[in-house]
Amino acid sequence: MSRLLLNCDIGESFGSWTMGLDAEVMPFIDCANIACGFHAGDPGIMRKTVSLALSNNVQIGAHPAYQDLAGFGRRSMAYSAQELQDLLHYQIGALDGMCRAQGTRVSYVKPHGAMYNDMMANPAQLRAVVQAVAAYEITLPLMLMATRDNSAAQAIGDEFGVTLWFEAFADRAYDNAGRLVARQLPGAVHHDAEVIVQQALTIAAGQPLTASDGSALHLQANTLCVHGDNASSIAAVQRIREAFNRQSSL
Amino acid sequence: MSRLLLNCDIGESFGSWTMGLDAEVMPFIDCANIACGFHAGDPGIMRKTVSLALSNNVQIGAHPAYQDLAGFGRRSMAYSAQELQDLLHYQIGALDGMCRAQGTRVSYVKPHGAMYNDMMANPAQLRAVVQAVAAYEITLPLMLMATRDNSAAQAIGDEFGVTLWFEAFADRAYDNAGRLVARQLPGAVHHDAEVIVQQALTIAAGQPLTASDGSALHLQANTLCVHGDNASSIAAVQRIREAFNRQSSL
Amino acid sequence: MSRLLLNCDIGESFGSWTMGLDAEVMPFIDCANIACGFHAGDPGIMRKTVSLALSNNVQIGAHPAYQDLAGFGRRSMAYSAQELQDLLHYQIGALDGMCRAQGTRVSYVKPHGAMYNDMMANPAQLRAVVQAVAAYEITLPLMLMATRDNSAAQAIGDEFGVTLWFEAFADRAYDNAGRLVARQLPGAVHHDAEVIVQQALTIAAGQPLTASDGSALHLQANTLCVHGDNASSIAAVQRIREAFNRQSSL
Amino acid sequence: MSRLLLNCDIGESFGSWTMGLDAEVMPFIDCANIACGFHAGDPGIMRKTVSLALSNNVQIGAHPAYQDLAGFGRRSMAYSAQELQDLLHYQIGALDGMCRAQGTRVSYVKPHGAMYNDMMANPAQLRAVVQAVAAYEITLPLMLMATRDNSAAQAIGDEFGVTLWFEAFADRAYDNAGRLVARQLPGAVHHDAEVIVQQALTIAAGQPLTASDGSALHLQANTLCVHGDNASSIAAVQRIREAFNRQSSL
Repeated sequence: MSRLLLNCDIGESFGSWTMGLDAEVMPFIDCANIACGFHAGDPGIMRKTVSLALSNNVQIGAHPAYQDLAGFGRRSMAYSAQELQDLLHYQIGALDGMCRAQGTRVSYVKPHGAMYNDMMANPAQLRAVVQAVAAYEITLPLMLMATRDNSAAQAIGDEFGVTLWFEAFADRAYDNAGRLVARQLPGAVHHDAEVIVQQALTIAAGQPLTASDGSALHLQANTLCVHGDNASSIAAVQRIREAFNRQSSL
Repeated sequence: MSRLLLNCDIGESFGSWTMGLDAEVMPFIDCANIACGFHAGDPGIMRKTVSLALSNNVQIGAHPAYQDLAGFGRRSMAYSAQELQDLLHYQIGALDGMCRAQGTRVSYVKPHGAMYNDMMANPAQLRAVVQAVAAYEITLPLMLMATRDNSAAQAIGDEFGVTLWFEAFADRAYDNAGRLVARQLPGAVHHDAEVIVQQALTIAAGQPLTASDGSALHLQANTLCVHGDNASSIAAVQRIREAFNRQSSL
Repeated sequence: MSRLLLNCDIGESFGSWTMGLDAEVMPFIDCANIACGFHAGDPGIMRKTVSLALSNNVQIGAHPAYQDLAGFGRRSMAYSAQELQDLLHYQIGALDGMCRAQGTRVSYVKPHGAMYNDMMANPAQLRAVVQAVAAYEITLPLMLMATRDNSAAQAIGDEFGVTLWFEAFADRAYDNAGRLVARQLPGAVHHDAEVIVQQALTIAAGQPLTASDGSALHLQANTLCVHGDNASSIAAVQRIREAFNRQSSL
Repeated sequence: MSRLLLNCDIGESFGSWTMGLDAEVMPFIDCANIACGFHAGDPGIMRKTVSLALSNNVQIGAHPAYQDLAGFGRRSMAYSAQELQDLLHYQIGALDGMCRAQGTRVSYVKPHGAMYNDMMANPAQLRAVVQAVAAYEITLPLMLMATRDNSAAQAIGDEFGVTLWFEAFADRAYDNAGRLVARQLPGAVHHDAEVIVQQALTIAAGQPLTASDGSALHLQANTLCVHGDNASSIAAVQRIREAFNRQSSL
């Protein structure tokens, strides 16, 4: 069984506003997707979050977004490919600046919110993102969503020489295409910790999930997206971490 | 006669708004102080400005500012030393990100507007800036203002191992302390190109200026601040450049 | 011949950046669409622009936009109907505040940029805008684009009791549906002042234009959109104003 | 005993970030100081907050601030008197816009954070604020801090014909001048609910407090500032409300 990295969106506070239990979830994860100031995070929050990641020996990823603080980067915006690349370079660089001041560096990139969704829905946008990462630093992996068939995305990654890290979700139901079932639909989100841990272990073992239409769904994933929003999501992360530790010690 | 670098604030457009004749002034300068998005500049403007500097073989400096787009970074804001350092790391990093995507790097730092003025007026603020530059990259020089006595600033630079580049002005009158005469006062700004070029040559030659009280004023300067605002300021820059070229070819 | 109001986007400077020749165009127009701070304009710019409109006896319209200063409100953003109404109320109110302080009031509303285009392309969005205007102040007219058939828009206006002011363009070619020919296409923009003035007079006279497919196009318009960007556009506005004055004095 | 209004800062969430227990504190207060988008609040938050105030029959006050979202309006910024007035008109107008859409209006003004502190420290700034309120709507009271001697502030209010509402604090210690003891100093903030309620009743009764130097301090106050930050501050507000109700029913 290959090691499945646990990644989590982190550093999404802003100014005087707090979001997420960053200090509580950090001990259990491998990769922190740190907000870069455009949907959340400000320079002070970013400094503290980098420091927290460092002290927990967690990899630091840039989590860039559309420039929409009021909308938390969740609204699609009609950026051109060039504008998108500019947004990425600025934000990755800004987080890298906060990292350099603490003697570390950004080690991967995961777009946030609508930028992530649009990248998954639109190959031209994915190309722009991959190209932006390649231009910034060819050794940085790009994190994106594992679906039933990763080959089209992989071809774009290969074209530019960018490593892709595919991520899966333990707390969400998948449809036949390997996309997440929309949150509004019944059964879209798993709340039972047992179910969540089991789905994590299934993915980690390379075993198929059962999609919403009953079909078997093989996800090739390098990382699992977890959440530090509240006590119950952190309890789930902790259980996944412990289950992974048990597996790897077998 | 040591070489006096010509530095100019550049890249101060924003979005659909244009400011400055960047393409016209770039051929005559050595160092471009590029806005980093907080008082001016956006990721697209920054990319184009970096590209313009590269094609003119001009050094790229970060020109960070207080976060005050509406006020163009010219209003003092009560930032703590820590907040100031965070602002600097974020903005230097962001510009460095735009640079990396084009295969280059930031090569010095010059604070903008109120951040610059407050740093010159307040030693604690200068310490914070120097410390921030040291933490980001110890080899980056910090550009600040030459006055009658640079020793206090130099001591702070030495303490953190940061090279200081002192800048002088060819188009401004100086007072006895080697500070700029306030713009509102008569004679504060030189408009005659002959006077400007002569002051530039005097500074470059290490000869004393005459301060507003008639005293001789020796400025130890590494660089001269020039302006690309309009056709007449660019004509002055061109004449200074040509005069420097003649001097250095003697 | 009914009077055709001349409207112009105004007050699109921001902070230290200037855009448009507001003082030059103001004497020739009837209605100033004043930016409200989200795509352009800041409180100081808005104050000066209101003052300029007042001294020229020009009606003040709110020109609200998506919250995208870097993109000048020209990028579509996925706002919900509720969010759109909130944006409108905030921005109309803000401009009304600047007006109140000078003893006047906003007297109509014209959405800007992508908000305008999306409203014309999407009836649900137009409904949201009309409803927002009705809730703010039922007597405020909403300015939108005249097309070949205004009836669908008119029905929405009637439903909420909001007066619609349809606007036409003198410097743009129209397609068969009465939509503007895209700027990239040849012949989309008229540059010849004679042609522009003639198109203005044709619309004012209630005579048909010739659409890009050769068909006759009747536009029912209350107002004509003119531009104060540069000297040549202002010269065209002046000529249209003078031609209208001659007509009305016959 | 004259009625002492309870006022509270409200609507200080922003986008996806929540701050304060607005719904919990609203039933116990008379006046809601609603953030206007510059230090907190966005159009959607403002709409919901106005609605909450309306349904609790609470007066709506504008709570304008310096434009510093990342700093929550708590950092002094060097605004000119004119800029300050522009900020006020924009923000009061924006909140009034949200109010108009719900059939109500702003009924007083209370500056926030550094704008409030600077206004209390600097008579020129107080004049600018009073003048701005007068220009917007002469009937709107301005809320400011009661000190040992309100006469200088009152003279400015009288000069422009603006009603002043002086506010006092039940949970803070006062110095000899009737200013709040700085938070860093011991005893500056009262945490014991008994002490808080007693100080509220003392102020309401027009009885003197004991200042930090032991002197008697008479505060002439129209309103008491209370807090909805957390469960314990809300419990204190509820107890003050109940104590006031008992007093007024005697």
